[in-house]
Amino acid sequence: MKTNDAFDVSSELAIGIDIGGTNTKFGIVNHRGEISNPGSISTDQFENVEDFVNELYNDLMPAIEKAGGMEFIKGIGVGAPNGNYYTGTIEYAPNLLWKGIIPIAKLFSDRFKKPCTLTNDANAAAVGEMMYGAGRGMHDFIMITLGTGVGSGIIANGQLIYGHDGFAGELGHTIIRPGGRLHWGTGMKGSLETYASATGIAITAKELLDERINEPSLLRSIKHEDITSKNVYEAAIEGDQIAQEVFKFTGHILGEALANFVMFSSPEAIILFGGVIKAGNLLMDPVKESMEQNLLPIFQNKVKLIFSELKESDAAILGASALVWEFK
Amino acid sequence: MKTNDAFDVSSELAIGIDIGGTNTKFGIVNHRGEISNPGSISTDQFENVEDFVNELYNDLMPAIEKAGGMEFIKGIGVGAPNGNYYTGTIEYAPNLLWKGIIPIAKLFSDRFKKPCTLTNDANAAAVGEMMYGAGRGMHDFIMITLGTGVGSGIIANGQLIYGHDGFAGELGHTIIRPGGRLHWGTGMKGSLETYASATGIAITAKELLDERINEPSLLRSIKHEDITSKNVYEAAIEGDQIAQEVFKFTGHILGEALANFVMFSSPEAIILFGGVIKAGNLLMDPVKESMEQNLLPIFQNKVKLIFSELKESDAAILGASALVWEFK
Repeated sequence: MKTNDAFDVSSELAIGIDIGGTNTKFGIVNHRGEISNPGSISTDQFENVEDFVNELYNDLMPAIEKAGGMEFIKGIGVGAPNGNYYTGTIEYAPNLLWKGIIPIAKLFSDRFKKPCTLTNDANAAAVGEMMYGAGRGMHDFIMITLGTGVGSGIIANGQLIYGHDGFAGELGHTIIRPGGRLHWGTGMKGSLETYASATGIAITAKELLDERINEPSLLRSIKHEDITSKNVYEAAIEGDQIAQEVFKFTGHILGEALANFVMFSSPEAIILFGGVIKAGNLLMDPVKESMEQNLLPIFQNKVKLIFSELKESDAAILGASALVWEFK
Repeated sequence: MKTNDAFDVSSELAIGIDIGGTNTKFGIVNHRGEISNPGSISTDQFENVEDFVNELYNDLMPAIEKAGGMEFIKGIGVGAPNGNYYTGTIEYAPNLLWKGIIPIAKLFSDRFKKPCTLTNDANAAAVGEMMYGAGRGMHDFIMITLGTGVGSGIIANGQLIYGHDGFAGELGHTIIRPGGRLHWGTGMKGSLETYASATGIAITAKELLDERINEPSLLRSIKHEDITSKNVYEAAIEGDQIAQEVFKFTGHILGEALANFVMFSSPEAIILFGGVIKAGNLLMDPVKESMEQNLLPIFQNKVKLIFSELKESDAAILGASALVWEFK
């Protein structure tokens, strides 16, 4: 009865795709959250989205054949910036070359002849964390991704919060300093992303270097416009005062924002994710202190502040693929 | 077969109780959301919570008898400040005389010999609005109560968001002006409640009167400490410049806060409720303008900003009683 294997749920597979502004990562995922044949292509080499979909098809086909063929693939799950779960479209994503409204789910399902589901990349990562990572067993948590930008995914009552239009969870764009720092992309002032992203950390460093012009710093050996959050981290662990101050300032603001989020959905945990968390306690100590200070007593000393347990590149692939298991 | 009426679902009734710092309102509610025998007692005349429960029992019994007797009552639903859905306890409510942790659901169920469910008063109002008011048919909305304080209830994916501990939705305590106005009760600085509540509106008026000491205002005929938000409203509709400025300032800050909330859960509507909304467009025009200005383009001109459709005293009774229908 070997032919029946195709109908065995345990051998059902999903394709998970994580579209980022620079790179797109993909893999074939089973029900246990194991990724086989992972791969990656540059997103920004494709001005035309159809070429991008074709390239992914060509890259994935050998892996699909190796896994037993297309009949084992239940569907495709995609995480993408500004990805809309309800419409299957990417809408006005500022970090992608494809402008306007892109019917990405339809493009994939037409090419692969399989159903495709789409969500925001940070939402996909939150689902991945709930199914396979630090959020396992939790019904209420908020995932915050601290990378080039600040993204988020909110789980409440054991479900991802999509909002009425599929765009819930844009916490990086909430205003935490009214009239504050200008956002390079949105034109808004004082949003969390302008402070707590890698980009924001580099800006804070430059501002502090300018303010304290007479204070020595390891960062002064780097050309101003080339300073990255990684440089700031490296200087901070060398004991550089200005670099350490940058993390204190960042942590203070991020902690205030997290306190506001806690008073919204009262999560069991906030799970932090993304390149910026490599700063570890340099960032986490001031974040925790500031968050607790800004919470009402009923919320204090309850919320776990933890790091993602998934490889950064895996979370969104796993989360996107997990949406495939929900197909009826 | 008259005796079978007791088992007819359409004649099932629930007791709804809305505990406020000053008054407690109650009534008997049917499945259509009709309240019979409404009543009210002063909450703050009872230093002892058992006396309070007894008084409610004595007040409700005649109405219960009139409705056919205790066998028609399915259970009791209670909304109360700091009411915890999971534990059935009121925990450290600053505006109630009963301090610490009060097992209010158990006290009611012991006295009435009926199951009792508890939630936060603002959460109960949100459920009432979803079942019988302006939120009918909506799966995602945020209810903001603007009264002496600022409360909130959040509906997402068609469910009330309780959070892991039952305390979700304390949006009045989110910080909207870091380092801003000191809260009279919590000691926090710059929370939404310090600006957008009736109390906050009166404070803003006093501050503006002090700042513009040479500018005439109708409000100068009232003793400073006696100024209420109602006085400010009345002066504003008379054309008083300072009073109108108070509503502009309040609306501006509230709109910013609402924009942040929208970017959290992307609701179809924000439903405003409570005494402060009597100000109508004086408040709503600046709120709407400021909210839209602070939203990312993907959220703009989508969110309905509407008023509650329920009588203020009814919403929490209806919402609390609605929780009773969920009893298995």
